[in-house]
Amino acid sequence: MNAHTMIKLSGLIPAVFTPFDKSGAINLPQIRPYADKLAADGADGVFVCGSTGECTSMTVAERKSVLEAWVKAAAGRMRVIAHVGGTCQADCIELARHAAGQGVDAVGAIAPFYFKPASVEELVDFYKPIAAAVAPIPFYTYHMPSVTGVNLPMKEFLEKGSRAIPNLNGIKFTSNNFMEMLECIRLEDGRFDILNGFDEMLLCGMAAGARGGVGSTYNYSLSTYRNLYDAFLAGDIERARAFQQESVDIVHVIIRHGGGVRGGKAIMNHLGIDCGDCRLPFAPYTESEMRRLGEELDRIGFAK
Amino acid sequence: MNAHTMIKLSGLIPAVFTPFDKSGAINLPQIRPYADKLAADGADGVFVCGSTGECTSMTVAERKSVLEAWVKAAAGRMRVIAHVGGTCQADCIELARHAAGQGVDAVGAIAPFYFKPASVEELVDFYKPIAAAVAPIPFYTYHMPSVTGVNLPMKEFLEKGSRAIPNLNGIKFTSNNFMEMLECIRLEDGRFDILNGFDEMLLCGMAAGARGGVGSTYNYSLSTYRNLYDAFLAGDIERARAFQQESVDIVHVIIRHGGGVRGGKAIMNHLGIDCGDCRLPFAPYTESEMRRLGEELDRIGFAK
Amino acid sequence: MNAHTMIKLSGLIPAVFTPFDKSGAINLPQIRPYADKLAADGADGVFVCGSTGECTSMTVAERKSVLEAWVKAAAGRMRVIAHVGGTCQADCIELARHAAGQGVDAVGAIAPFYFKPASVEELVDFYKPIAAAVAPIPFYTYHMPSVTGVNLPMKEFLEKGSRAIPNLNGIKFTSNNFMEMLECIRLEDGRFDILNGFDEMLLCGMAAGARGGVGSTYNYSLSTYRNLYDAFLAGDIERARAFQQESVDIVHVIIRHGGGVRGGKAIMNHLGIDCGDCRLPFAPYTESEMRRLGEELDRIGFAK
Amino acid sequence: MNAHTMIKLSGLIPAVFTPFDKSGAINLPQIRPYADKLAADGADGVFVCGSTGECTSMTVAERKSVLEAWVKAAAGRMRVIAHVGGTCQADCIELARHAAGQGVDAVGAIAPFYFKPASVEELVDFYKPIAAAVAPIPFYTYHMPSVTGVNLPMKEFLEKGSRAIPNLNGIKFTSNNFMEMLECIRLEDGRFDILNGFDEMLLCGMAAGARGGVGSTYNYSLSTYRNLYDAFLAGDIERARAFQQESVDIVHVIIRHGGGVRGGKAIMNHLGIDCGDCRLPFAPYTESEMRRLGEELDRIGFAK
Repeated sequence: MNAHTMIKLSGLIPAVFTPFDKSGAINLPQIRPYADKLAADGADGVFVCGSTGECTSMTVAERKSVLEAWVKAAAGRMRVIAHVGGTCQADCIELARHAAGQGVDAVGAIAPFYFKPASVEELVDFYKPIAAAVAPIPFYTYHMPSVTGVNLPMKEFLEKGSRAIPNLNGIKFTSNNFMEMLECIRLEDGRFDILNGFDEMLLCGMAAGARGGVGSTYNYSLSTYRNLYDAFLAGDIERARAFQQESVDIVHVIIRHGGGVRGGKAIMNHLGIDCGDCRLPFAPYTESEMRRLGEELDRIGFAK
Repeated sequence: MNAHTMIKLSGLIPAVFTPFDKSGAINLPQIRPYADKLAADGADGVFVCGSTGECTSMTVAERKSVLEAWVKAAAGRMRVIAHVGGTCQADCIELARHAAGQGVDAVGAIAPFYFKPASVEELVDFYKPIAAAVAPIPFYTYHMPSVTGVNLPMKEFLEKGSRAIPNLNGIKFTSNNFMEMLECIRLEDGRFDILNGFDEMLLCGMAAGARGGVGSTYNYSLSTYRNLYDAFLAGDIERARAFQQESVDIVHVIIRHGGGVRGGKAIMNHLGIDCGDCRLPFAPYTESEMRRLGEELDRIGFAK
Repeated sequence: MNAHTMIKLSGLIPAVFTPFDKSGAINLPQIRPYADKLAADGADGVFVCGSTGECTSMTVAERKSVLEAWVKAAAGRMRVIAHVGGTCQADCIELARHAAGQGVDAVGAIAPFYFKPASVEELVDFYKPIAAAVAPIPFYTYHMPSVTGVNLPMKEFLEKGSRAIPNLNGIKFTSNNFMEMLECIRLEDGRFDILNGFDEMLLCGMAAGARGGVGSTYNYSLSTYRNLYDAFLAGDIERARAFQQESVDIVHVIIRHGGGVRGGKAIMNHLGIDCGDCRLPFAPYTESEMRRLGEELDRIGFAK
Repeated sequence: MNAHTMIKLSGLIPAVFTPFDKSGAINLPQIRPYADKLAADGADGVFVCGSTGECTSMTVAERKSVLEAWVKAAAGRMRVIAHVGGTCQADCIELARHAAGQGVDAVGAIAPFYFKPASVEELVDFYKPIAAAVAPIPFYTYHMPSVTGVNLPMKEFLEKGSRAIPNLNGIKFTSNNFMEMLECIRLEDGRFDILNGFDEMLLCGMAAGARGGVGSTYNYSLSTYRNLYDAFLAGDIERARAFQQESVDIVHVIIRHGGGVRGGKAIMNHLGIDCGDCRLPFAPYTESEMRRLGEELDRIGFAK
């Protein structure tokens, strides 16, 4: 194990949206002001080209250009974690090599989600050359069984995976199986870095021992989570609960208004950070949807 | 609202097994020593004829006799909560009336799980006469979507349900949707009593604000949970995590050895509290299974 | 094997509704005119106290009284198959004994659906004393994995089950796994009787070799299915398809208007066969729902 | 509507495997002998770069090269249908343009399976430019809800889709919802071409009216299906059932030996058509697996 793979991505890391323009093309110039906002908000990092960034709706070339823009825009103010996952291992390796060349702080990859690994071994073997392509930069698996349908035991994955993948550093853990999260956090005296993935349950993730989170709602509600995070570490759990409730309120709004990606992007637009529309299969946000979203945000007292 | 419905069932409440004898009949005399053990262990109550008690494998008459035995055996040392749920409302009402007559402290009922309510309204209407049959004794819904397939929004249930059911007091919340648990706990300034149902995530439930739990592993690991509970309330979360890990270890054993009911009952037998076998469709525990279970329990240092 | 267990329940067997009166009590006198209608329509049998009959919403005593009324009302004009399944084996055995005493033609039981058998062996062992209680009357398992969550391999069940249960005669097969249906039909040269359960795919069941069906829509659309059935056996598959389409049209109506039990019962009421409302958790049918249902039935040309 | 979109892809169309060499690279030279075998077996077409072809494990460039090789190798002896689907619309459009340039007979695309369309409209909008890129070549949606999680109503899709997509010609229908298949086949007097997708239920698909099928087991069992197909059309359904049983037997073997892609490829290798191993996340087939597979194939009398 080397210095690189000892890092812990503590703190709050927005999974950033990918801004598109009216024509549907990537709006690269918009990434700089977006990064400025997150840096001003105090984000500890950005998770680029993840689900929130609609990675599966972009070509390999587009994913590269988006990552390049974020590395440049982050400008050392925030860590940059590149998501390079997909169903095609060759594409993932290419993206991994590219990410390493950009000097990112860490790399993550989702489990292949069309054909699904039937065993921990198949998942480890899938990841092995991808992680090798970025070594010694730390590699994370992105665990999200509700979306991928891949629900292999993560403790076993860390045990077997770390033997085959020296730079395996942890898990972006997007699951509400906190039993599993706890044992991954405690494995080998806390060797691995387990990042909380469900923003609306960050409090539970922190109770289980997580010290970092990656989430899409951090993009527009970072102060809520910062308050939760600080209160928890200060031992004021009742205060942390109040901020978790604030988070739950906003999550209910996005559930009712298009979901985490489509609705979340609309909130960014509402805040004046132009992210454009999603790509299909997400329909463009309509004006009347935008108006109703604004009304609901007002209703819950969402600070613009 | 009356005094009755203001109670909070704080603390640790084992969901008790139903002891059967060799012939498969209920082993009523065995309930007294079982209750003595739990009282000695410091249980705050017992949840009788729930899933763990194999309620769905017993006749209405059997459920009554089991409850009577527990009320007698608890002898005021622990609260008694009677589970009266099922698919047939008429049976539930009969069981509810009987439970009220036994002077139980609270009553719970699972959502009907064959035909499933399609709306909160249907669930409230199903419960209404059952809860009325025990009023003013507090009534709880038993929420366990992974088993029942009924996953209606619980916050809305509390809001609408409490208007129709004056003695609706809370939820036995067996779900890892801690976002929902948190908002149910915080609703109307904490009016409702939300009991944690997944033992292996009690820490997360407590982080969300739960102060009571109902669980099957409390039957044989109560001290682990007591330590967790006390540590959490004392603000020593790292210590609480260590005990949660102890709980996770035992849960893995039961997952591998027959599940919470069949494997859990085997642990009771291992501990010398004769609970006999489960009823079908759970196969009797074999001697070789018993031996392997004992070896695994030794391996994790389970205190006999 | 004896004569009893050699029967094949060929033809079309409505799974009958249980008529309730305004107070929610069973409307026993209504069963005679209901039976008269089915006999006049040419039903080959009735499947009593199944899902459609809301068995899980009735007490054991109620289920007995409903069966008695149907046996009397059928009056030898149609076969009577009694459903005696449930989660409690003791209740099932009691119902089975009662059914045998009534002289029914066959008995069926659904797989236990709360605690679920984890193996074919557990399912066989659960059924064994139930089937024994009716021997030599033929016994059927009622396979409906979409509702019970029990999806054990049915061919293996027949092989192992018939060794332990001499009067195991077949399966009420309510699944669209027609691969499995075909191999069950062909097993041991067609020894077992496999009854088609999804009315809207009767054509496929017949293609696979089924010669009988049990279904809820037969209650009000028997002539459609009779036409389909006769056309198929006559080798006129295109004509059979046209009647299957008629069936699909009516199934879409019930899907949109309350489902097979609640919406189906409303159609019976629409036809003048008073079946009353369902029991909770199914909400009573409202007048405006009834009006909209009538309009849709008119729209598809449903013959009153 | 033009001539192109009036075609019906009747008959049996193997969904072909993609041969890989020892290094994991595409084994292009192997496609010619593979095509020769299928042509000799009497295949009516080939479905290239579908699931069976591991399309999601290949780069865009690789998919193009595989298609080019198949068009060349088919050499007019069989129809060529190109699958161009994926999660990234831009990649799909590029693949569609390329396929059109190769002169394929038809093009199909799976529903986007990472982000899932929430409405028929979103699915239609996703497909629209892909289908436009190949017009007037006929376009098919590839419906496989068990894998994609996209289970939108297909009849409504055909109705709305055909207004937006003039060359929408039908559905590769891989679902056992034969109610839905029947109504899609019968829609607008049979305007659309609905291809059966579950080989082990081809008989049911034909009963519903399908006249063509696309499947992976056709690669190595074509004569079984040809016999089934011919018997059905000749009105000899009992004979068709016997061949369907043959198909079921082989499907059980692949279920037990690696599944349709991994196990199916092994059968091809067993037959001497070198397809190599699958790409990860499918582990390479081991020698002992190969031996056991061979034994099972012998046991069921699989003709080499």
